[in-house]
Amino acid sequence: MSEDKFSASFKESSVAEFFKRNRQMLGLYGKLRSLTTVIAEYVCNSLDACEEAGILPEIIVKIIPLGEEHYEVHVIDNGPGIPKDKVGKALGKLLAGTKFHRLIQTRGQQGIGASGCILLSQVTTGKPSKIISGTGGKPLYMELEIDTAKNEPKIKLQKELDYDYRGIAVKSEFKEVNYQNSSQNALEYLKRTAIANPHATIKYTDPFNNTYIFERSSGYIPKTPKEIKPHIKCITVDELKTLAKDHSKKTIAGLFKQEFDRVGDKVIKDINSLLDFDISKVTMSKANWEMFEKVVKAIDKTKTFAPRLDTLIPIEEKYLEESLRKIIKPEFLSVLSRKPTVYHGGYPIQIEVAIAYGGDAGQTLANNEKKLELMRFANRAPLLFDAGACGITKAVNSIEWRRYGLKDIENLPLSILVNLSSVHIPYTSAGKQAIAEEEEIVEEIRKALMTAARSLGLHLSKKRHLETKMKKRGIFLNYAKEVAEGLHLLTDRNKKELIDKLEDIITKKLQIEEMNEQEESEDISEGEIPEDAEEKKSKGKKDKITDYFEADGDHDE
Amino acid sequence: MSEDKFSASFKESSVAEFFKRNRQMLGLYGKLRSLTTVIAEYVCNSLDACEEAGILPEIIVKIIPLGEEHYEVHVIDNGPGIPKDKVGKALGKLLAGTKFHRLIQTRGQQGIGASGCILLSQVTTGKPSKIISGTGGKPLYMELEIDTAKNEPKIKLQKELDYDYRGIAVKSEFKEVNYQNSSQNALEYLKRTAIANPHATIKYTDPFNNTYIFERSSGYIPKTPKEIKPHIKCITVDELKTLAKDHSKKTIAGLFKQEFDRVGDKVIKDINSLLDFDISKVTMSKANWEMFEKVVKAIDKTKTFAPRLDTLIPIEEKYLEESLRKIIKPEFLSVLSRKPTVYHGGYPIQIEVAIAYGGDAGQTLANNEKKLELMRFANRAPLLFDAGACGITKAVNSIEWRRYGLKDIENLPLSILVNLSSVHIPYTSAGKQAIAEEEEIVEEIRKALMTAARSLGLHLSKKRHLETKMKKRGIFLNYAKEVAEGLHLLTDRNKKELIDKLEDIITKKLQIEEMNEQEESEDISEGEIPEDAEEKKSKGKKDKITDYFEADGDHDE
Repeated sequence: MSEDKFSASFKESSVAEFFKRNRQMLGLYGKLRSLTTVIAEYVCNSLDACEEAGILPEIIVKIIPLGEEHYEVHVIDNGPGIPKDKVGKALGKLLAGTKFHRLIQTRGQQGIGASGCILLSQVTTGKPSKIISGTGGKPLYMELEIDTAKNEPKIKLQKELDYDYRGIAVKSEFKEVNYQNSSQNALEYLKRTAIANPHATIKYTDPFNNTYIFERSSGYIPKTPKEIKPHIKCITVDELKTLAKDHSKKTIAGLFKQEFDRVGDKVIKDINSLLDFDISKVTMSKANWEMFEKVVKAIDKTKTFAPRLDTLIPIEEKYLEESLRKIIKPEFLSVLSRKPTVYHGGYPIQIEVAIAYGGDAGQTLANNEKKLELMRFANRAPLLFDAGACGITKAVNSIEWRRYGLKDIENLPLSILVNLSSVHIPYTSAGKQAIAEEEEIVEEIRKALMTAARSLGLHLSKKRHLETKMKKRGIFLNYAKEVAEGLHLLTDRNKKELIDKLEDIITKKLQIEEMNEQEESEDISEGEIPEDAEEKKSKGKKDKITDYFEADGDHDE
Repeated sequence: MSEDKFSASFKESSVAEFFKRNRQMLGLYGKLRSLTTVIAEYVCNSLDACEEAGILPEIIVKIIPLGEEHYEVHVIDNGPGIPKDKVGKALGKLLAGTKFHRLIQTRGQQGIGASGCILLSQVTTGKPSKIISGTGGKPLYMELEIDTAKNEPKIKLQKELDYDYRGIAVKSEFKEVNYQNSSQNALEYLKRTAIANPHATIKYTDPFNNTYIFERSSGYIPKTPKEIKPHIKCITVDELKTLAKDHSKKTIAGLFKQEFDRVGDKVIKDINSLLDFDISKVTMSKANWEMFEKVVKAIDKTKTFAPRLDTLIPIEEKYLEESLRKIIKPEFLSVLSRKPTVYHGGYPIQIEVAIAYGGDAGQTLANNEKKLELMRFANRAPLLFDAGACGITKAVNSIEWRRYGLKDIENLPLSILVNLSSVHIPYTSAGKQAIAEEEEIVEEIRKALMTAARSLGLHLSKKRHLETKMKKRGIFLNYAKEVAEGLHLLTDRNKKELIDKLEDIITKKLQIEEMNEQEESEDISEGEIPEDAEEKKSKGKKDKITDYFEADGDHDE
């Protein structure tokens, strides 16, 4: 190419243009998936906003069919709303918002989801999205598009409405999308949202005009998520270099104490002991790349101290159990919360799992047969797509279910639920549907699942036992009739009386047998379902991790 | 969150910042993968530049170990170079370059690859990349970083060098990456690049200081890629609306004739016949979304005419065969180019496949056993990662290899090569390692593979036949010795003479048998390896597609 030709074809492009041409990166591809993703993005924003404001969410979702592959979506919440001067940028500019890389447990992360949906609406229908935002008092109405060449909001119409409303209401049209009965549609998404967010009330009207109401199952208000300072174990040299710009006069130690989680004199001393300079004396502007590199290496080698773990907001065992009993009505249910821990040395995580068996558990196939259903959640937001690429799926598949007496689990009426809570979910892409296979996360999920699997295994083994007993009783009773007949002929005693007596004997005998067995089984139950080598290995690891934190009682608060 | 808090935490972020935090989207994650991706991005740019300038590429690649997980990468080409005033933006700004969404067969597509690597270098080492760019005469030397907050180039040092050089030379350091013996390392990447680019000479020095030279296997210069105009079958309503801004005064028909591929009066007439208005009279600025929507629907319904197919640059059968024989030295080789066709109605594609058996074919395992090796290419660039998510893999797995007499192909010494050429490769992500499962593409690959599989099946069946024959001959000959011994005792004739005569008879007899069988097998060879139902179905489809184009002899040139 000649220089002129090069210059002529040289172009700069905006991030909105980029995502318009790479919609798949935002999960906005496929007719069904696109529509579900739109609902997910809007609803996540609503739940996040309510949670940060300490409001019990009431969310109304409607999908109205307008024509072939043409739908209108309404999502209306009772959240805190967006300040008037920020509505345009918050929803009409990609990579803008309050969430970009804050260390806080929210469903959204990058300020890209809802604006991506508004972009999809406009490129498939040519129409702006209609937004109402109220922060108390009279709300603002806005018709909003994105100027893709500039990645800036383009406000087509803006006015104050004449009634009081607090919250965000969004109305967008979409073409080239489709709604169908599927385990990946909006209904399934909202059902799972209700399971993991028992504090929310969600009203959903589907395109066939069926309305589903998921009432909140308990009146508790979940904790308000807190933003945490970064943990020094997670810092990179490049980030330190960037921080040096805004904090040039501070010493490295001063910056650590001010900007990082739980750094005190003890930690500074530990780091210094591994260095040939004193971070309490070197200012940020005087430190070069090599020095920062040494500091990061020293931090790596210091003993880990746990980050603040009280910022995590799990569903909580009792609420998860309550909502699963209400929505799935299982025959057996095991719910389990692990203690919070960390991955990458400094990001707090917490794993919750549930295993539900029988009732409405499992995925129902077209022929009404039941199949295993895996419900994945990250910060209580359902993950419906990309299961194959997800660390949660990997953890589930790595378990030897047979060892817990669970054969062919693919075809059991079984729902397995896993929720990962963290201030930093390691998604594999901006589409936020799969979690990276971080070792610590996979291991935590495995441990929780193995414990739950053992409970289910015991339940099923007892159930089988009971069935055998009932069968035995049936055989005995039948036999009793024959015996009674014989005795009646020999002794001429009343047949009915004889049968009653024999039944009585059998029942008592079986009861005693059962009691003995129960006693025995309480002794051997742990042995009955083998605590396998695999799990023992994990337990070993677990103890190690626990020690790891507990050993460090002297970190700075 | 209060309004104040909302405003305080509201942030706008640049695309460089976004990709810095989402490196995995560019394939820049994993220690091995990151390093291979860096080489791939720089080498692709070099090959593209040479090709557009009609230069036979000579590329020097070096990976120098500098410390633990710390390497320096050199890529030096003899291409046309980048004009001095554009070097900074071309390599130091994401989403900038000459390739963003032009319809031209290049390896790069979005102006994001090389700048992503320069970003990776700077965030892992704090150092700028060193670039030399010469367009003839004295070249420019530049030390380049990216200002991530603004997504703009930050030139640390710039000077003219005092010698003549034409081309681009890039030197970048990386930390947190690793090189290892692997079928996904730079050596494998460059070997495959050499196979699919027989016109290029590549010299590679690995971190252990071994040098590999892949000499060009033929002196031909491949065709210069031509940019094509978009095909109206690929246009969306949103794109028409965008075009209306720059072409407001043109009629819709006028715009179609000027800006789209091969649109003439016949096509305009066909479109108009399905509309209630005349696109030769309505100007772009007067058309609204609904009208554009009608136009796009009408285009969908008009007969397809093929796009220009002469813009595709395949490897070509003879060159692919030559380079595979040279590099893999297989016992059997079948190479096959399909005729160009289209997907999505308007994007030209062409599929080439090769099946190599024996010799150095297949992937060699640690225990020296051989396994099936699938080599995927898009526009002659190797795809080493994300095989599981790729349409090429899907096509390969969908073939019932057993039907061609190929049992357990996973464990055969077999290399399957597939190259997709197109002006628009539908990658699943900006990491450019997997091709979307577009139906037409998967089908074309299947057809080509089935034909090649049949040839290999015949070869192996003949080979097995020959082995049986040789075994038979061996048995006969052994037997002949026994017979000769007996005859010698009975007749007292010379034993050696008797053996020679008997061998002669056996050899002649077997030769005649073989000739007869060969004649027969030529008659039945097609029947021997069944042309299965699966393939017949495909053939039916193929005919349909051929008709689809041939029926339309009267399109406008």
